[in-house]
Amino acid sequence: MTDVITIALDAMGGDHGASVTVPAALQALQDEPALKLILVGPRDVIQTELKQCGAGESERLAIHHASELVGMDERPAQALRSKKDSSMRVAINLVQEGAAQAAVSAGNTGALMATARFVLKTLPGIDRPAIVAILPTTHDHVHVLDLGANVDCSPEQLVQFAIMGSILVSAVENKPRPRVGLLNIGEEDIKGNETVKKANELLRVSALNYAGFVEGDEIYTGDMDVIVCDGFVGNVMLKTSEGLAHMMTHYMRQEFQRNIFTRLSALIAMPVLRAFRKRLDPRRYNGASLIGLNGIVIKSHGGADKLAFEHAILEALAEVKNNVPERIGRELAALAAKGALA
Amino acid sequence: MTDVITIALDAMGGDHGASVTVPAALQALQDEPALKLILVGPRDVIQTELKQCGAGESERLAIHHASELVGMDERPAQALRSKKDSSMRVAINLVQEGAAQAAVSAGNTGALMATARFVLKTLPGIDRPAIVAILPTTHDHVHVLDLGANVDCSPEQLVQFAIMGSILVSAVENKPRPRVGLLNIGEEDIKGNETVKKANELLRVSALNYAGFVEGDEIYTGDMDVIVCDGFVGNVMLKTSEGLAHMMTHYMRQEFQRNIFTRLSALIAMPVLRAFRKRLDPRRYNGASLIGLNGIVIKSHGGADKLAFEHAILEALAEVKNNVPERIGRELAALAAKGALA
Repeated sequence: MTDVITIALDAMGGDHGASVTVPAALQALQDEPALKLILVGPRDVIQTELKQCGAGESERLAIHHASELVGMDERPAQALRSKKDSSMRVAINLVQEGAAQAAVSAGNTGALMATARFVLKTLPGIDRPAIVAILPTTHDHVHVLDLGANVDCSPEQLVQFAIMGSILVSAVENKPRPRVGLLNIGEEDIKGNETVKKANELLRVSALNYAGFVEGDEIYTGDMDVIVCDGFVGNVMLKTSEGLAHMMTHYMRQEFQRNIFTRLSALIAMPVLRAFRKRLDPRRYNGASLIGLNGIVIKSHGGADKLAFEHAILEALAEVKNNVPERIGRELAALAAKGALA
Repeated sequence: MTDVITIALDAMGGDHGASVTVPAALQALQDEPALKLILVGPRDVIQTELKQCGAGESERLAIHHASELVGMDERPAQALRSKKDSSMRVAINLVQEGAAQAAVSAGNTGALMATARFVLKTLPGIDRPAIVAILPTTHDHVHVLDLGANVDCSPEQLVQFAIMGSILVSAVENKPRPRVGLLNIGEEDIKGNETVKKANELLRVSALNYAGFVEGDEIYTGDMDVIVCDGFVGNVMLKTSEGLAHMMTHYMRQEFQRNIFTRLSALIAMPVLRAFRKRLDPRRYNGASLIGLNGIVIKSHGGADKLAFEHAILEALAEVKNNVPERIGRELAALAAKGALA
């Protein structure tokens, strides 16, 4: 029998709050027999939602009351200072106390990052946590970080991201030497700003399997396992991708709806279009890790629906099973002992 | 009768050199009766290519000999110093001398920018030129700058980009007050790095029709006329878009080729798929302007084919017809006189 894994969910986070998180939690419990979930938020709100789903508290599904809510536009510092009983904060507290092995929230990214960092602290050798997520590629997929936690990064931070990304991939995908690329606007050593040039030099002499600079197009068409960039660039890149995919879908639909003939061909092509959509469904990639912390915190897209939020829960489960923070901590300690950390 | 417009082409630039630029030139001459072209490069190479196309020099098509070639990976400073008779340099010289009203090159972006800046100089009030291009949106299209000329930008430079982009759009699209957005990783004033925050403040008090911060997804789905960002972010954004579009096409093709039934449905859906592809064909968006110079220089994608390179020529033609640099210069002078330039 596998060990039971307990995950705390910020039931109130995201654009849809409990109306998404509660059904997603129930689905995850159905799909994963070794999972226990703690729904964190106002008890009455969660109970009402559970009742609507024809469910209630059980041995595998607990409610942990939290009276406050962090707004999606609330300043991180403000949330940290004044919302000590928010669903987000309490979910992370549960991880710190050992009552849960991971926390998942679809709430305000800045507040989540600030709270997680304050409550759980960063691993030794890590200045600031980063947000890492999986993106699909023509070959397979790639882990990209940072996706928005750090707007200005030093070369040393980019190296830390590379180390964390590399350890994450080797831990969850069993790849001994993940290929790491550094995002730049050209592949030659002379290209780019001073930060990436310096990070490139540091990575060249590191023990990582560093493959050099990669350009934007290689995120989706390249063969890296990990791509590193600062959070501003990573966030713009990720959101631009969402926008472009949306626009392409928009025009595809428009062309198929042009007249009776195109509508008919849409009907015939439907199974293919559906398979295509499923292949690249962004909901299947939902769930970004806040990496570099003493604990597992997963950030779900704010607009996540039930399927997407369930994926974020499953991502948390995978990281717990693979002991990601412990492994990163151990590797960092080994690197520090060798004097390989700047 | 319309005035004749003369454009100089760097016949040797890009991944395919004269084998693309010469046929594209012939096509553009056929499509635009008021156009004259000067092909710049080694006379024998161009003549051979012309002969292969069943054409030759004419009243509307001249060859201007240039003996050297700037490599795609050559350092800009190196190219500027040592390649004084390159096809790229000579094409820009022709603009400076008044023999041509615009230059088009698919060559090395860095070298093109450095050469254009050295030969033509920037307009008064502009620190450095920017690269601006048109991208499609769900509504229509948007001008985005900078796409890679400036890896580190000051807030003041971002404001200059906003001014130039705004004047460009009002000139070529006859829009009196283009809506300008500043790319950031959130829409609230507290988000982003210090540079965008400061630029945001400067733009708020400017005379521009400034709409505030926009996020990455709004590039393709928003309703801005101009979006401003630094060249590092812009270049990553643009290349990521190329990669994502490529990946989506790749998986779409894969799904349609899965078996005999899906192949059949591909056949039936072909007219729609073709219309879709045409609607978003990146070749139709080829041709980025180097804006902020005393003259018109258009950068074509290095991998451009005949259709794409012809589009870059047509972009140059449109800017000549609309007197873009003169209009930007005039507006900048007016702003400077009002003390509205930092």
